[in-house]
Amino acid sequence: MEHCNKEFAVGIDIGGTNTDIGLVNAQGNCLSRANLPTSKYDDVEIYVDDLANEIRKLLSDNNLSIEDIAGVGIGAPNGNFYTGSIDYAPNLKFKGRILLKEMMETRLHTHVELTNDANAAALGEKVYGGAKAMNDFILITLGTGVGSGIYINGQMVYGHDGFAGELGHAILYPNGRTCSCGRAGCLEEYASARGIIQTYKELCSEKGITYDEGVTCKELTAMADGGDATAQKTWEITARHLALALSNAVTFSSPEAIFLMGGPVRAGHWLLEPLKRYFDEFNLSIFKGKTKILTSQLPANNAAILGAAALVVNK
Amino acid sequence: MEHCNKEFAVGIDIGGTNTDIGLVNAQGNCLSRANLPTSKYDDVEIYVDDLANEIRKLLSDNNLSIEDIAGVGIGAPNGNFYTGSIDYAPNLKFKGRILLKEMMETRLHTHVELTNDANAAALGEKVYGGAKAMNDFILITLGTGVGSGIYINGQMVYGHDGFAGELGHAILYPNGRTCSCGRAGCLEEYASARGIIQTYKELCSEKGITYDEGVTCKELTAMADGGDATAQKTWEITARHLALALSNAVTFSSPEAIFLMGGPVRAGHWLLEPLKRYFDEFNLSIFKGKTKILTSQLPANNAAILGAAALVVNK
Repeated sequence: MEHCNKEFAVGIDIGGTNTDIGLVNAQGNCLSRANLPTSKYDDVEIYVDDLANEIRKLLSDNNLSIEDIAGVGIGAPNGNFYTGSIDYAPNLKFKGRILLKEMMETRLHTHVELTNDANAAALGEKVYGGAKAMNDFILITLGTGVGSGIYINGQMVYGHDGFAGELGHAILYPNGRTCSCGRAGCLEEYASARGIIQTYKELCSEKGITYDEGVTCKELTAMADGGDATAQKTWEITARHLALALSNAVTFSSPEAIFLMGGPVRAGHWLLEPLKRYFDEFNLSIFKGKTKILTSQLPANNAAILGAAALVVNK
Repeated sequence: MEHCNKEFAVGIDIGGTNTDIGLVNAQGNCLSRANLPTSKYDDVEIYVDDLANEIRKLLSDNNLSIEDIAGVGIGAPNGNFYTGSIDYAPNLKFKGRILLKEMMETRLHTHVELTNDANAAALGEKVYGGAKAMNDFILITLGTGVGSGIYINGQMVYGHDGFAGELGHAILYPNGRTCSCGRAGCLEEYASARGIIQTYKELCSEKGITYDEGVTCKELTAMADGGDATAQKTWEITARHLALALSNAVTFSSPEAIFLMGGPVRAGHWLLEPLKRYFDEFNLSIFKGKTKILTSQLPANNAAILGAAALVVNK
């Protein structure tokens, strides 16, 4: 792999609500940050103008110019590495196909790369995190949705069209919960924050327990810590769903490790202990005891920015 | 990719009943064949001795010597490319771990490579068949079991341990049919010859139709051709099961094409028409209409031999 000899890079994590921008050094430390409220912008041209200005400001605040950075890496929902575009992202106000790589290069005159947020996270894990020495691994992001980034033979898997690695939409239960994608039974409906809360509510309904409609995964973890059996059971059931999906992924690529990242992972042993147990139970015998289940070794608050920055550092 | 400049290679396809041996030229034609009855051998040393002798005889019959070939490629059940061994193959009499690559190299003093039969078939499709120009594709073998060989970024996917590509054991229905692997609901129990016959028998039982216990997939195709509604329905249901598995595989690697190979594929349009229809229905919207469903373009009688030979041609 060819490495750029410029020490700094800018990483951008575009989310539906916020856009986080970070200046990253060669050691994978995020030196300085800025952000933009994505959801406040209706016009993508104005958004990109402001994004470019924020980057210039971030650089000048750190006594750097655009020539001092290897480039700008962007992780975005529905981001396509091959085309450099964000294509029909359901969580963004900007509709249709946004040629963001090109729009940013025109404004900043530096190298820009773009991929989807989960692929960026996997790249971050490879370049700065726990997967440095691995050629075959999968990273799963649990959050509003479930995303995945996949490495095989030391390379990111983009597929023939740039959209590979959508394990959140592998169908686990063909007659299962209706998914936001319009199909049924996708992993995302069971292992995203929304899916986990849904499991909790179903358990409460079965047991005739009243629950707070606005309960969060963070609260479910606190409740499990406090001895709440329904919250504990929610994490166990979630682990079982996720283990089934991960054992299916192993039949595909037999990775050395599967990394987990995102809010629900903070449930810690409530999720991870049963996950490892069910994963071992569900794995085909030739795979048992081989693939490690690990949590991301990137700092949670900067993981997405580091992953995005790695896109240009690695070029 | 580095190509060997020797014109000939020997390809070996080891099955539980027979071992087929073929002399293959650079154009992917199988010039001459021989075989050994695998199941007649209890002692692996004698089997390997006889296998080496058959190869020498095949070469001398064609006025060639061992120096004239690029090497010997072997496709075998549970064959591991990394270790060159056959590991605990349930369908072979030879138990435990057979270091076949080493045993053959000692006897023949030529380059020997070994992988599992489905990976060999995928390699054959890449080198001699319909996947020559493709970097991302999956080959599925339907037969006694269901196997798969996967190409990503122009390379075979072996995984960190050499056992990747076991899509026959991806779990489709967590509470489904008991699988020979000891788990439940694997694709193999629905799309192998045995699984297809099981579907037919279940349909007959539901409808109170008497059936021949020894019915074969070939007969089911003939019956479908003759207007038998239950046989036709069997292929349609099989197509639906397979389509679900293939649409899940697409979420992983988004391949340009999925190739099908093996006896049940001879059902032709009875299988392929509903397969393409359900595949399009089941695919996530961003993948719809992209991945082609194709049949193998290797000659059926020599596909396994060509795939095995490609192992050494491609070195």
